[in-house]
Amino acid sequence: MITHPSFTVEPWCLRETELSLDLLAQSESVFALSNGHMGWRGNLDEGEPHGLPGAYLNGVYERHPLPYAEAGYGYPESGQTMINVTDGKIIRLLVDDHPCDLRYGRLVSHERVLDFRSGVLSREAQWTSPGGRTVRISSRRLVSFTQRAVAAIVYEVEPTDGAASVAVQSELVANEQLPRFSDDPRVAAATESPLVAEEYFAQETRLRLVHRTTHSALRVAAAADHLVEGPESTRWTAQSEPDVSRLTVTADLVPGRPLRLVKFVAYGWSGERSLPAVHDQVDAAVAAAVSTGWDGLVAEQRAYLDRFWAGADVEVEGDAEIQQAVRFALFHVLQAAARGENRAIPAKGLTGTGYDGHSFWDTESYVLPVLTFTAPEAVSSALRWRHRTLPAALERARQLGLAGATFPWRTIDGAECSAYWPAGTAAFHVNADIAMAVVRYVAVTGDEDFERAEGLDLLVHTARLWHSLGHHDAEGVFHLDGVTGPDEYSAFARDNLYTNLMARRNLIDAAEAAVRHPDRAAELGVDEEESAMWRDAAARMAVPYNESLGVHEQSAGFTTLQRWNFEATPPDTYPLLLHYPYFDLYRKQVVKQADLVLAMMECPDAFTDEEKARDFAYYEALTVRDSSLSASCQAVLAAETGHLRLAYAYLGEAALMDLDDLEHNTRDGLHIASLAGTWITLVGGFGGMRRYAGEDGKPGRLAFAPRLPEALSRVAFTVLVRGRRLKVDIGRSHTRYRLVEGEPLVVLHHGEPVTLSADGPVDCRMPPVPARPEPQQPAGRRPMGLSAGEESLAGTLE
Amino acid sequence: MITHPSFTVEPWCLRETELSLDLLAQSESVFALSNGHMGWRGNLDEGEPHGLPGAYLNGVYERHPLPYAEAGYGYPESGQTMINVTDGKIIRLLVDDHPCDLRYGRLVSHERVLDFRSGVLSREAQWTSPGGRTVRISSRRLVSFTQRAVAAIVYEVEPTDGAASVAVQSELVANEQLPRFSDDPRVAAATESPLVAEEYFAQETRLRLVHRTTHSALRVAAAADHLVEGPESTRWTAQSEPDVSRLTVTADLVPGRPLRLVKFVAYGWSGERSLPAVHDQVDAAVAAAVSTGWDGLVAEQRAYLDRFWAGADVEVEGDAEIQQAVRFALFHVLQAAARGENRAIPAKGLTGTGYDGHSFWDTESYVLPVLTFTAPEAVSSALRWRHRTLPAALERARQLGLAGATFPWRTIDGAECSAYWPAGTAAFHVNADIAMAVVRYVAVTGDEDFERAEGLDLLVHTARLWHSLGHHDAEGVFHLDGVTGPDEYSAFARDNLYTNLMARRNLIDAAEAAVRHPDRAAELGVDEEESAMWRDAAARMAVPYNESLGVHEQSAGFTTLQRWNFEATPPDTYPLLLHYPYFDLYRKQVVKQADLVLAMMECPDAFTDEEKARDFAYYEALTVRDSSLSASCQAVLAAETGHLRLAYAYLGEAALMDLDDLEHNTRDGLHIASLAGTWITLVGGFGGMRRYAGEDGKPGRLAFAPRLPEALSRVAFTVLVRGRRLKVDIGRSHTRYRLVEGEPLVVLHHGEPVTLSADGPVDCRMPPVPARPEPQQPAGRRPMGLSAGEESLAGTLE
Repeated sequence: MITHPSFTVEPWCLRETELSLDLLAQSESVFALSNGHMGWRGNLDEGEPHGLPGAYLNGVYERHPLPYAEAGYGYPESGQTMINVTDGKIIRLLVDDHPCDLRYGRLVSHERVLDFRSGVLSREAQWTSPGGRTVRISSRRLVSFTQRAVAAIVYEVEPTDGAASVAVQSELVANEQLPRFSDDPRVAAATESPLVAEEYFAQETRLRLVHRTTHSALRVAAAADHLVEGPESTRWTAQSEPDVSRLTVTADLVPGRPLRLVKFVAYGWSGERSLPAVHDQVDAAVAAAVSTGWDGLVAEQRAYLDRFWAGADVEVEGDAEIQQAVRFALFHVLQAAARGENRAIPAKGLTGTGYDGHSFWDTESYVLPVLTFTAPEAVSSALRWRHRTLPAALERARQLGLAGATFPWRTIDGAECSAYWPAGTAAFHVNADIAMAVVRYVAVTGDEDFERAEGLDLLVHTARLWHSLGHHDAEGVFHLDGVTGPDEYSAFARDNLYTNLMARRNLIDAAEAAVRHPDRAAELGVDEEESAMWRDAAARMAVPYNESLGVHEQSAGFTTLQRWNFEATPPDTYPLLLHYPYFDLYRKQVVKQADLVLAMMECPDAFTDEEKARDFAYYEALTVRDSSLSASCQAVLAAETGHLRLAYAYLGEAALMDLDDLEHNTRDGLHIASLAGTWITLVGGFGGMRRYAGEDGKPGRLAFAPRLPEALSRVAFTVLVRGRRLKVDIGRSHTRYRLVEGEPLVVLHHGEPVTLSADGPVDCRMPPVPARPEPQQPAGRRPMGLSAGEESLAGTLE
Repeated sequence: MITHPSFTVEPWCLRETELSLDLLAQSESVFALSNGHMGWRGNLDEGEPHGLPGAYLNGVYERHPLPYAEAGYGYPESGQTMINVTDGKIIRLLVDDHPCDLRYGRLVSHERVLDFRSGVLSREAQWTSPGGRTVRISSRRLVSFTQRAVAAIVYEVEPTDGAASVAVQSELVANEQLPRFSDDPRVAAATESPLVAEEYFAQETRLRLVHRTTHSALRVAAAADHLVEGPESTRWTAQSEPDVSRLTVTADLVPGRPLRLVKFVAYGWSGERSLPAVHDQVDAAVAAAVSTGWDGLVAEQRAYLDRFWAGADVEVEGDAEIQQAVRFALFHVLQAAARGENRAIPAKGLTGTGYDGHSFWDTESYVLPVLTFTAPEAVSSALRWRHRTLPAALERARQLGLAGATFPWRTIDGAECSAYWPAGTAAFHVNADIAMAVVRYVAVTGDEDFERAEGLDLLVHTARLWHSLGHHDAEGVFHLDGVTGPDEYSAFARDNLYTNLMARRNLIDAAEAAVRHPDRAAELGVDEEESAMWRDAAARMAVPYNESLGVHEQSAGFTTLQRWNFEATPPDTYPLLLHYPYFDLYRKQVVKQADLVLAMMECPDAFTDEEKARDFAYYEALTVRDSSLSASCQAVLAAETGHLRLAYAYLGEAALMDLDDLEHNTRDGLHIASLAGTWITLVGGFGGMRRYAGEDGKPGRLAFAPRLPEALSRVAFTVLVRGRRLKVDIGRSHTRYRLVEGEPLVVLHHGEPVTLSADGPVDCRMPPVPARPEPQQPAGRRPMGLSAGEESLAGTLE
């Protein structure tokens, strides 16, 4: 495993104290800045060396043909790949006649700090050129949360051991040369030089490039302006070519008199607007940023983040790494979503090109739950994106012979891009995940305008899908055949339990929402008969259960499949999908990631406590966690069923996925859903927070069942609920609930109602943790935090 | 539907009396000549116009990358495509200064005849050039069954209305320009100009080209020699370029004095042998052919076919079209296989590039059953090819984590080329089909040397596959999970009945063969414990059955899936796979082709008569016959269960698949398995011929249960069984069995033993046909031969 040896453990920042070229790509991901609209990877200012240069705009992609050796009806023909847009980060440096490239000369010192409270990435370095001159390089960089089109950099250079002539080239660069991703010449052709120049400009300190993508026909503009401060010798010129626009600043420097450059960069893109419109837009954004100034941008950034942390922070005592990790996680989740504004939240945010920049169901099932309680305006934005893509989802359902909407498994613009239907098209649960996100958001925020304007459309069209997808058998049981659940080591099964329970919820929620908005429902053609069919299908939904084992089945018959031979599976053959064929994984009892366990988290009412304990133990023994989406859900159910040490071990896995590069692919971008899982584990696991569905359309209760693992002495978190700010402070013996802001509220503490008001905090005692034998993982898949020697004590000490 | 309006109905030939350029590609397939080693499509002598030019050598292919938008472990990376090799058919004609191209001028008369007894394709045409001169063109063409490398053409031209100067160019042409098949530039690159010149030669009347394929590295040589007869003015010259070698003959002709050219062509190829070796080989083959001479080749061809027909002919009285079709079918089945000599029998024979020239399971399950009883030496050759590919099948199994051998779903050289695993890799039944073909061949021919030398290897390695693929459940039942049966509208199911019954047979047959050859079995590492495991798995094999419906299940749970909505399926959406997604087909009760019905044919012991009747009726109502492999099996079971009119209707569908181009793709090559199905329907259906497995390794009985549909007054056929020639002559009241040649033999007639000997024929009475209600097909899928008005009479008149 490649871990990063030079990250220090600090509560409010991520600090790198050495630069390892081998780990450059990983560091570019963890130091990426984004506001959900635009994103810059943490590339070095000089542009090179780099792991993967990256500047991204949410929604900007290029199309390419999807190749099939054997095509089939309904296979998507067109793929979408997020492209590296015009790079505005680059500030090259020449010291005397040596380009500053850290592969040459000597890096005397290096430090980068990503500050979660200021939202600024700082860098301090001292570098001795091959010619022997040492310079101090300092830069600070931000991607603004308040001015969504804007990023800014302060770059300072100063010789420390004598005079030096320096040249600084601040650039906008389009069509940067990238590492080769695909063997398919047609894909490579679409992504290698995706931008066609439309306009280029450089004058005084101002730069601008406008380009257009060939197939997706999106216009992308980038502009920059600069403030230059330096000694009298300082001179500058600007020049541009179609793919490079450049300000060159030269100065003769002596120690103590640095050259300082402030670079304001703005981006704009559109598939509709004209070249002059987009051109003007970026010039205006730059002008506004210049007017705000660097200090102004920094102040706005800090204020924005202060507000966020006041409603979102999680304090952890007893594990400094986890404390850092959860703030790192929340910061990046916010970055992925804050200013998306009716665009998707990709699986990697805007931190890398992993998964082609696509969005999946984990946005709704992992990322939005966190944001619903911490930054709810980002949730309505993300769901409005789904609503905007309804026409494509309706068309896709029609193509597949289904009613309602079929949302895509993976996409950028709303069109299905999944080329492997058993794990794409058949994974219909994405529709219920979206519906659940709508209901969760409305229940937690009370945003009835959203429900009425967009939510109902999403609920109705997804409910229609489920009704048309399923059928009643001779005994009247409603089945969903041929579907794939979250576990990607199973596919195309009958009655995937997660899917069935989520679809049941979807059908009920749609029927209830239609009652609340009868006029809008009528517009959608929903009548009493249709609602009745939904309620009936929900009531008769199959729930597979193996009576003799006393456990639910992940899908019908699952528990009678052959068990994967974990004992004969070498450790280096994980993840299994890289070493075993799908057909073999699919036909055996082996679970890639929480599936039935996720169902227990999402639909807590559908299981008794004892069922949860038995089901968790059964599936724990089959789950190999080859997905970053698994550990957090397992942690939540481990905590609920009393296995707190196990939950704590899984917390580490979720929290350190990217900081420790546990899956060896952080270079491609951060695992945003796994990061969200850190919060889910702390709040849903150790806080035991659940949202129970209300009866007859009434909002349900928010419930907590706090319990801490031995290693932690305190976990405290703040959540936003229906305009209130609620702080839950969990200690070893008591949990203190405090209404920080808003009207009184009743919550449940371990099942008992607790009324919270401005009168002050309420302290509640922690009940004992039920003692159960600790579940076993598959051979060789025990989480790292649990050593073999501890097993015998399992379940008794907690 | 494109039918061919100008084929006449004749018992021993296929005659075309008009040339339709629209139907050229179809006619090129039906008039194709082949001996199983080399094949020439029925292209016009002049080369153009053409539908698809084609000259093929069995086993000569080019490799190309298989593209995947989302790749997976174990996906084949390399595809194989049969290529058009050097074309030796072309004889261009210039009349005065007009090239003879039938798209210009006027075709006064045209006739082509494929004679099934002589094996010669004849052509007579009169053509008036754009310049007004009329010529008679006559050609005869054969691909020799006796000299497998050799083909020959006699070409005559003569003006009929005045003097003409003609030039005849007899050519060898490599890298002919072909219609574009693939959008993938990498596939196109591999197949568009697949041959790289190594040597070219032309001298006097002799031509030669030697080429090599780029990726598969196969050397291909073609040579020709000529005899020229003409008036004194006749002159010729030969010349060659890398891709064209040409003899040009010029003559001034007058009516009554034709120019006659005899062209002898020979092919050779090798992936091993040197250029001089392959070069010498084709020169020698041409020299031998010249020495035999045209008349000699014709005589040999006739003698070869006389022998074949004596052991293979089927006579049909009452339907002249069927009489012609079954001989057309037998002729082409023979052509596909006769001289393959340890190479595959491709799905299209060597008549076109459909399915990329790949071989599938239908060779073993449709083609070899016919050949086993009519040309058994072709069967041992085809099975030796499978044996030669054992190393690839063993390696494939290892790659998939299985024991034994996994034979490919589609291949040319033995490596898996299927890019869609649910219908390829998961269709493991191909292994049992091969094992069944081995056992059938050995039982029918008594070729114990083959069983010992090759058969046992095939049986043991396939049995090992089944044992490792399956598992016992808690009740001790042996299951095969995640397999796909013959029906391509289902996939990845538990306990596909066909697969389970065939695997059961495979396991038993392997165990019994190991007992017969203990020393060879020991070499393969088979001990008593392994044989016992095979017998145990066979004994406990799951046989899915729905008690409440009283029918077997195609796979576990199949009968509880939603029924396809046939009533709402428009007629123009067949074949369904072009209009509905796999996931929807797979999860519903809809059957592309005989699957459970095929199981009843292949494993007749596994069902009672009443079960057969109920199962047939149940699946008949779900089977849409979107595959050319279906009608014949349905016919056989329709006949067995007493539905003779239905069987007769399906006979027409199987028999006329290519002659009437029922699936609109005869242009790509003939459906060899469907052609074989014509024989299967007549012999297995109306003859009721079945081969029952013997007990304890003894050869089983050959059984007949003859019954004729009303439309036919007589069906008579000859089969070869253990060195005997047996003629079965079915009339309306009696069936006459006659041992034409060989030792006495006991067969079953409707269950009763009948001893046949040289003493003379035995006449047996036909029992009454059981009266059962006629099964119904899915809406709109009633076979053509049955009109709606007849339905009410179903089951009573027969």
